[in-house]
This record gives sequence, structure tokens and C-alpha cells, in this order.
Amino acid sequence: MDIKNLVKQQVRGICPYRPGKPIAVLLKEKGLERAFKLASNENPLGSSPLALKAIKEGLSQLNRYPEGSGPALREKLAKVYGIKPEEIILGNGSSEVLSLSLLTFLNPGEEVILPEPTFTIYEILVLMCCGIPVKVPLNPDFSYNPNRIAKAITGKTKFLFLASPNNPTGTIIKKNELTKLLDELPKQVIVVLDEAYAEYVESPDFVDGISLFSGKHLLVARTFSKLYGLAGLRIGYGIASAGIIEEMNKIRPPFNTTIPSQLAASAALEDREFVARSLENNRTGKKYLYRGLSDLKIAYVPTEANFILIDLAKNAPKICGRLEDKGVIVRPVDNPMMKERYIRLTIGTPEENTLFLKSLAEILRYK
Amino acid sequence: MDIKNLVKQQVRGICPYRPGKPIAVLLKEKGLERAFKLASNENPLGSSPLALKAIKEGLSQLNRYPEGSGPALREKLAKVYGIKPEEIILGNGSSEVLSLSLLTFLNPGEEVILPEPTFTIYEILVLMCCGIPVKVPLNPDFSYNPNRIAKAITGKTKFLFLASPNNPTGTIIKKNELTKLLDELPKQVIVVLDEAYAEYVESPDFVDGISLFSGKHLLVARTFSKLYGLAGLRIGYGIASAGIIEEMNKIRPPFNTTIPSQLAASAALEDREFVARSLENNRTGKKYLYRGLSDLKIAYVPTEANFILIDLAKNAPKICGRLEDKGVIVRPVDNPMMKERYIRLTIGTPEENTLFLKSLAEILRYK
Repeated sequence: MDIKNLVKQQVRGICPYRPGKPIAVLLKEKGLERAFKLASNENPLGSSPLALKAIKEGLSQLNRYPEGSGPALREKLAKVYGIKPEEIILGNGSSEVLSLSLLTFLNPGEEVILPEPTFTIYEILVLMCCGIPVKVPLNPDFSYNPNRIAKAITGKTKFLFLASPNNPTGTIIKKNELTKLLDELPKQVIVVLDEAYAEYVESPDFVDGISLFSGKHLLVARTFSKLYGLAGLRIGYGIASAGIIEEMNKIRPPFNTTIPSQLAASAALEDREFVARSLENNRTGKKYLYRGLSDLKIAYVPTEANFILIDLAKNAPKICGRLEDKGVIVRPVDNPMMKERYIRLTIGTPEENTLFLKSLAEILRYK
Repeated sequence: MDIKNLVKQQVRGICPYRPGKPIAVLLKEKGLERAFKLASNENPLGSSPLALKAIKEGLSQLNRYPEGSGPALREKLAKVYGIKPEEIILGNGSSEVLSLSLLTFLNPGEEVILPEPTFTIYEILVLMCCGIPVKVPLNPDFSYNPNRIAKAITGKTKFLFLASPNNPTGTIIKKNELTKLLDELPKQVIVVLDEAYAEYVESPDFVDGISLFSGKHLLVARTFSKLYGLAGLRIGYGIASAGIIEEMNKIRPPFNTTIPSQLAASAALEDREFVARSLENNRTGKKYLYRGLSDLKIAYVPTEANFILIDLAKNAPKICGRLEDKGVIVRPVDNPMMKERYIRLTIGTPEENTLFLKSLAEILRYK
């Protein structure tokens, strides 16, 4: 019997997630001496130095299992946000927090509303959990359309996923839109709010889900991968009422985050200097790239995150390839409706931003 | 609406896995100055020194996402076993490999045969995937009973889980039993063979699943947590035909293992000195503990792993508590049929083994 016939129906059609190309892979492919990656929304300044120090100091205990729920890190996070440790769950990246929520609450055949376009992992997770993804398009300017979301709710809806800022668009759901949705949704709907990029937001219209979750069926997901520069350690967390977290803990793998990850995240939370420097780099880089793109007459979607969705109008995959020839890795957009027009650019260091604009200008001029 | 009513049926009754107590927690609880942990089958000699060196050398890249599938580590493993990298999948601990297999292949309502007693995580994973656990008791001496397993197969059976050596019994499935089962099982049944402790086996009756998987519906799970002393890094792997691995990769979280974990595991694989020393410590510790237990007239189950199931006849939980008073953490057995009689002891350093026997003798004499 062919193994493909044993795969469960929902998984058969899944196309695996394609990550950004690692620098080492590009160097080898193209025989380049130098390349930089603006494809995966990583922190271009590296990792929090305090985090790296904490890893070194904890090396002697790696033969031991981690404390499963990460009590020290959860206590520290609870203090930062003025909430309780029982309202926090750690994940092997924030995406594990999302999958644990589905695995706890989603019955096979129930529906999950997803914005469109958004982070492609969500749909894979829903299918993996035998749920039905229901895609609700954003507006043409990539802002959320709460009315359309409300209309998509049925008796079978169990989850609404929102990302704010959304990936790959960099757009947020506004405070009044989110609070209205939370108030009006039927009680069987759990809202998962992915705030992986929340720390970068500058808009006054934004609201932090952590200020809203109390008493609601709302799970907020956050990560140490972006602002804290710890993508390689896979550590994120979810915040929700203690009742929701308690249920998710029934199926949380007992040791889902590593010792170095827990130690590094705890230390990074206190590294104010690194956080301030990272935020400042993002703010100035964003302005610089906006100006440079405008000078090149290239449209972009104003962003609240550490990346910019750039509208090249056409030939985006070809231009991505040409950028790679020059040692610049950016991200084509997976969505079939967008992939010819758009690329997603991570805001880099000043040097990387300059080189990106220079390379893009050369390509567009000589294409 | 109470959140409990939104939890899916299969998850409602799950009792979360209880891990062994961390040393730091016991020290605090009892006000002790010194304690040791023989509860979680960790490597008592620490971690492979080459692994720790590799982590230090890789600290500068932690702001980057890991290479998702871990190509460097998979290539190294492929060489070690004489198989192909496409026949290997990495997991956030070997338990993630098990859960990925269920999430890929198990339809809601299908049955999974589990030995009884065995590692309690299996049942939680099956319930999480909306499957039906079907428990098949081991023989009274904790050896496998292949006839009973064969009889438990129905048209709804999708998986057979076997652990060899089994946890908490330390017993193996014999070569002729396993090959017969693999030959005779209906083709819709996938065998998951958990070999977390395989490297410690001394019995000539053992067969390594890695020599058997080709052309079969067999997934072998291995870990770096035990022999290589990397429990705190959460890294394991699965080996199966490329077709099985390809399907599991559709839902594998794209960055499921951390950069330090991949680097450490790669280095540990080549640390022959540490491996040899760890195996020697286990062999001599096992003999020493067998002799010591016999002297105390205490029964035990002969083991093929790095732990021993000890039959105290009665009062096991109370004796565990008394051992903790003396700074010795061992593992009560979760299974309700066994918990009054048995404790599971990790084979420690010579000093730890001596202190365990001394503490146990004192408790039994004065109880």
C-alpha cells in the first residue's frame, strides 16, 4: 500500500512552508563572498548580548531536562505585563502556541477564520488539526475589514486568527475594530491574536492584546525571535486567561522549550539597551527606506513592523533572483495573487538598507 | 460560556504529564544543601564537551532562524547509519517526532495500540490527535506479548507504538518478535518504534529498528537527550522511508529545532570518548546496583536501558518521599496498577548509586 494513501485527507494537499534562504546557502549557490539576508524579519543587530551571556553561564546544566513550563521566565514576563504567571504559556516559537490552541480546542470539521493574505503557517496548522480554513480578504489597502469578518462567522466557527501587525502586509487591526469584534463575536469563538511584531508598532490606533485578554476568549501570541534577536532559539509565549492556559497545558509537550532558550529570553527581557537600539534602528531604517523607495518611484505599504511590503508592479520573482545574484536575499510573497507584484523586505542595518536600494536601482535601470 | 466547554472532548480528561522534580526545586522545598536527581534518565556525566564547545562557537548566529530541516545534522546521521538524509526528520525531542507522525497519518477516531505500561506521553499524544488509545498489557514479567498485540488489531488500527527498551520497564521487544510483527501486520498499520534508550542495550536478542525500516511502514524515533547528555536542548530524530518523512515534513513546524541544538547534536555524534565513558558508567553502575539491591533483598526488573524498575513490594510513594528528604530524587511510576510497588531509578554516577543504596537501606531498616 502506498504510504500516500495513509496520509489523512487534510494533510495530503499541504505544500510545506518555504523559509527564507539562509545566507550560507546563497553564498554556496552563487559563489559569492558576501551576502546579506533581509528575508526573514530577523533582528539585523544580532542577539541581545545579555542573552548570549546567560546561555554561556547555563551550559553546565544541559544534560538535565528543562523546567517544563519555564517558571522563571513566566514570572519575569508576568511582572513586565502586570499579569499572573498562570496566564502565560511558553512555546517552541510563538507558532507552537498557535498550534497548541488549535489542538486543545478545535474539533475536526470546525472552522477557523483567517485573514487573507497572512502568515501561511496558519492555514497549515488548521489543516493539520482537521479544521476548515475560511479566508476573509483584507481591504485592497491591506487594512482589516471587520464587517467582512463578522459576516464569515457561522455556527461552526471556533477560531478567528488575527495578526497585528499582519505578515506580510505590516498592517494592524485598529483599537476600535478589535474591541468591537471582541465584544460582538459569539461566545464559542476564540480569538488568536498574533503579535509577533507588536513591539515595533508606532501607530496610535494600535491596541495591545495583553491589555484586553482578561475575561475574554482571547489568546495573544508573542515572540523573542524579532525584537530580542533570538530566532535561532525558538521561543515565544502566549497570554490568555488562566482557564485557557490550563487547558492548553494538558497537551503542551512537557519540555517544549530548551534550557538555553529560557535562559536567553529571561536575560533579553532585561536588556533595555539592546531593545532601545533595535527599535531605533528600525525607526530610522524605515524612514530611510520609505524615502529611497519614493525616490525610485516604487510603491510600498506603510508598515508597523520590521519589514516593508514593496509593490514592484510586476516581475517580482525575477527581481528577487537578480537581487540574489548581488547577494541580497529578500522574500517573494507566497500568495499566488501577490507574487508577481510584491516582495517583503526586512528593515536591515543602515549599510544593508543602502546596499538594498542601490542593488534595486541597478536592477530596475538595467532590466 | 465556560472555556472548559470549548475544549475538545478527547482533551478534557487528560491529566498533564508530571515530570521528575528538578534538583533546584527539591533543595528549596526541603532546605537541603545538596541533592541529586535519579528521576529523569538523564546522563549523570553531564553533556558531551564537544557539544558544549559547538554551542559557544555558534552564539553569533542566534538572531537568524535555524535551517529548518537541519541539513548538516541529517547528513551526519545519514553517514553514521548508512542511510539517506531524506530518511531522517529532526524533532524538538523525539516526542515531537511521534506527534508529527500521528498528526500526519491518524484520522480522528482511528486506533493506536499502546503497550501497557509504557511512557505516558503516548496516550496524551493520541488523545490530542483525536485518536483512540488501545492498551495491550505486557506480560507479567514486562516482556512484550506479540500475540496479544496481533489480536488487538482491528480495521480501525492505524498505529502500533512500541518502545524498545520500554519505559518504565527497561525491557525490549525481541528481534524475532519484532520482525514477525512487521511481516504480519496489515498494511494500513504504521509501527512507531521508540528507541530513546537503544544505545544502552546489551542483550543479543535486540534488533535495531534502523536496520529494518527500509520498505516498511516503520518509523524509528531516537534522541540526543540520554546517551549524549543533551536533554536540555530538546533534540531527537525519526528514521523512516523517504515517503513517510516527506509526508511528515508537510506539517513539521518549519523551525522546530534550535540552532544550539543542531550544532550540539552534530558535535556530540562525533564525541566517541564521551559516548564510551557514558556507556561504561551505565554498565558498571547497573551491575553495582543489581548487586546492592540483591543484598537488600529487593527485586528489580533486569534492564536494557539507563534506568532500573525497582519492586519495593509496597509503600513506594512513601519511600520516594523519604528518599527526597535525604536529597535523592527518584521517579514514582505513574501507572495506578504499579505505583504502590515500583519506583524507577536512573543509573547515576558511582557516588550517586552508592548514596542511593545507602539511603534506601536506612529507610527500609527504620521505616
